[in-house]
Amino acid sequence: MESPATEPCPDHLVTLAQRLADAGAAVVRRYFRTPVAVDDKADHSPVTIADREAELAIRSLIEAERPDDGIYGEEHGTKNLDAEWVWVIDPIDGTKSFITGRPIFGTLIALLRRGRPVLGIIDQPVVGDRWIGAAGRPTTHNGKPARVRPCPGGLAGATFGTTSPDLFPGEDYEAYRRVAAAAKVAVYGGDCYSYGLLASGYYDLVVESGLKLYDFAALVPVVTGAGGLMTDWEGKPLDANSGGRVIAAGDPQTHRDAIAALAA
Amino acid sequence: MESPATEPCPDHLVTLAQRLADAGAAVVRRYFRTPVAVDDKADHSPVTIADREAELAIRSLIEAERPDDGIYGEEHGTKNLDAEWVWVIDPIDGTKSFITGRPIFGTLIALLRRGRPVLGIIDQPVVGDRWIGAAGRPTTHNGKPARVRPCPGGLAGATFGTTSPDLFPGEDYEAYRRVAAAAKVAVYGGDCYSYGLLASGYYDLVVESGLKLYDFAALVPVVTGAGGLMTDWEGKPLDANSGGRVIAAGDPQTHRDAIAALAA
Repeated sequence: MESPATEPCPDHLVTLAQRLADAGAAVVRRYFRTPVAVDDKADHSPVTIADREAELAIRSLIEAERPDDGIYGEEHGTKNLDAEWVWVIDPIDGTKSFITGRPIFGTLIALLRRGRPVLGIIDQPVVGDRWIGAAGRPTTHNGKPARVRPCPGGLAGATFGTTSPDLFPGEDYEAYRRVAAAAKVAVYGGDCYSYGLLASGYYDLVVESGLKLYDFAALVPVVTGAGGLMTDWEGKPLDANSGGRVIAAGDPQTHRDAIAALAA
Repeated sequence: MESPATEPCPDHLVTLAQRLADAGAAVVRRYFRTPVAVDDKADHSPVTIADREAELAIRSLIEAERPDDGIYGEEHGTKNLDAEWVWVIDPIDGTKSFITGRPIFGTLIALLRRGRPVLGIIDQPVVGDRWIGAAGRPTTHNGKPARVRPCPGGLAGATFGTTSPDLFPGEDYEAYRRVAAAAKVAVYGGDCYSYGLLASGYYDLVVESGLKLYDFAALVPVVTGAGGLMTDWEGKPLDANSGGRVIAAGDPQTHRDAIAALAA
């Protein structure tokens, strides 16, 4: 396990990341609630021209500005993954929400330095929500500081969210059911949007499984920069080598309770 | 079973219903993403001051304009339920989304004539989505005609939505799991918003259970006025005496397949 990133993320990279999010958002907004064809990917998840075009818009800007950086995109593959800086892109996280016309998906832009997430943006381009998390600065939501909330009572007092019961393969399903049953409120749907809202103090806990690097890399700096915890199900930091089981919590007690309930 | 409503809903009542939705929306928008206290109701569902104040704003307008009409509100009870016209109000359908800062809840305004829904509004005041369904006219979304889409392949080709797996009590849970497993795509969360999006052709099927009259009364005119079907799980029309098991479908084959899967 590497130690957590402590060096601040340089300002010019935060600025570039915002331009990347702007470029993706323009494409995604243009296709939202238009009749786009939905294709099945190899893993049976849906993808549209909006996903593909948004990622191309983002990649072309990276290649113009930072040609030596690595790129790890959901739709168009990888490049220079051994570079010091690697951009990780999910042009539409929550494609099922996108295709059903629900503005609770997001464009995810992350930057890894030597495999560790040091910058993340969650952008919801229809509602106009943007969370920016970067090492060395507090997370912002639409330019204002975002902060997690305390959760008296731990898991029993928590508002818990997860995207779908179908996320959890095999024994992960029973583990998720234990968390859902123990939480005060369970809310479904939302993908990355739930993590942004947790960073702003509207959720106490999000637990998911089966996530890929491009699903979670941008979420880590947003959640941790707002004072929250984001780890795998064993409480370990998330990096490029993590599996897809993630916990985000606003309050340390809720985080501990969730780890215990998942392992029970 | 009464025959379906065929008399058109008078225009002045559609106009009044829009004013009611405006009055509720103004309250709800004001409280969205502010730190409101969340109370537990007797059924353990959450309620906030936004729910209560929005319903009061709507009720006071009804009482000023139509003092003899009945009112059935989620938060402030019932009045004159034997009147010819009864307004059914859910000031925030999807309070769990409201309290988590997700703009996918809605204000529901319905009008029953002798127990049958003849007018329904689904209003999402943050995004700015309003569906209006009324007997004798096509459903509109933000002033433009809304229409369901065909669903080739029936249930196997359907994008299916439901708010939460926790909606389904007892044996209803296994019935819902059969539908979710047979659908092409399953999406979670959304409450009334899913039905509006179905009326606009973004979902093919919504199946829920445990709904109250104030949860479904407004949805029926929206879905049917867009060319869809909305019934109970046996295919019967929904009215004031229906149980809380509902199906909304855009395509007749999907509707038939869902009834069969639920009954299997």
